[in-house]
Amino acid sequence: MKALIPYKKKNAKSRLSPALTLEEREDFVELMLRDVISSLKEAGIDEIDVLTTPDNGVPKDLDVNVVLSEHDLNEAINAYLEQENKPIFIIMADLPLVRAKHIEDIVSRMEDVVIVPGKGGGTNVIFIKDPSNYYVKYYGSSFLNHCNIAKDRGCSVFIYDSFMLSTDIDEPHDLVEIMLHGHGNSQKYVNERFDMKTGKARAKINAAGDA
Amino acid sequence: MKALIPYKKKNAKSRLSPALTLEEREDFVELMLRDVISSLKEAGIDEIDVLTTPDNGVPKDLDVNVVLSEHDLNEAINAYLEQENKPIFIIMADLPLVRAKHIEDIVSRMEDVVIVPGKGGGTNVIFIKDPSNYYVKYYGSSFLNHCNIAKDRGCSVFIYDSFMLSTDIDEPHDLVEIMLHGHGNSQKYVNERFDMKTGKARAKINAAGDA
Repeated sequence: MKALIPYKKKNAKSRLSPALTLEEREDFVELMLRDVISSLKEAGIDEIDVLTTPDNGVPKDLDVNVVLSEHDLNEAINAYLEQENKPIFIIMADLPLVRAKHIEDIVSRMEDVVIVPGKGGGTNVIFIKDPSNYYVKYYGSSFLNHCNIAKDRGCSVFIYDSFMLSTDIDEPHDLVEIMLHGHGNSQKYVNERFDMKTGKARAKINAAGDA
Repeated sequence: MKALIPYKKKNAKSRLSPALTLEEREDFVELMLRDVISSLKEAGIDEIDVLTTPDNGVPKDLDVNVVLSEHDLNEAINAYLEQENKPIFIIMADLPLVRAKHIEDIVSRMEDVVIVPGKGGGTNVIFIKDPSNYYVKYYGSSFLNHCNIAKDRGCSVFIYDSFMLSTDIDEPHDLVEIMLHGHGNSQKYVNERFDMKTGKARAKINAAGDA
């Protein structure tokens, strides 16, 4: 079994810009990547490929393979799947709430494909037993795409239901989920920078230092 | 075991007003309530109390007990818990993605209290084995409140991780989750009224009829 993590550091997460500067965002995505990798290793997945472009840096101390591609996400992953024969666990780098238990539960499923939906029809994790009989189609309602591709290919599917894995960190209000449910590097980073202000409505993120 | 569903119909879900008129919202919350009740019954919970105020209507055909209170949510629920000795499953009425399997999983946990977090620090479901030794504190970061109350009372806690149960239907973009992952009356209602438009970003809700 192998894990594949698509990763982009350069000018990452522009929707977080109301809360974090460009430099902070680039630091932060690397910390989230570290937390994802740490949970994968804790779950016993040691063979980890990080898919990125030549102008994005992956820190040398991470003990992962770096796979470089200049193609778009779908083309790059599909080229990767075509030449692979081990089961592949594809996880996005912006899922710092993932824990080893989630990964163990997903990879122990009997179905051919396990899909973990994100908010708004996204696919946050997909576990593919036989990569030669599957391809990915991210963007748009990729959750529906991935269900349909499985059906076309005669693959059995399990939908794995997790709030923690549905929570990709895209917008300032997502940072509160890291405070509440996170761990590791990313939680330390967010806790150092933000206060959690509670009121009658949902918890809001306020930049530390703002009155 | 009993279920308690806080319910408000009158002028409900004002944040859905960009997508639904007042009358539609009032119809829609009743349909979501029906879906929640139907999942509870399918899970074998037949004793269902719907907590509401005298000016809110609960349809007569629902085969539930109506508990009326003019107090605020916390006071009303805590007064209810005080006089109850059966385990109580408190679920919000705006969780139409709940299925019987979720409920069965939650009520079969061994811990004293099971908390299902919502987005932004909310508590969407809480299962309390011994209501005489617990109280609720909704609003603000109720998830943290409920963890702390359990600790103070010496109750063991399980955090139940579910995207479907984290998804309370508050805003127009939540409606897409009903299209993708819902069922029953609420899905039928939403599918009749909205198109799912897919693009490079997350699936968006557009009012049917808009070009």
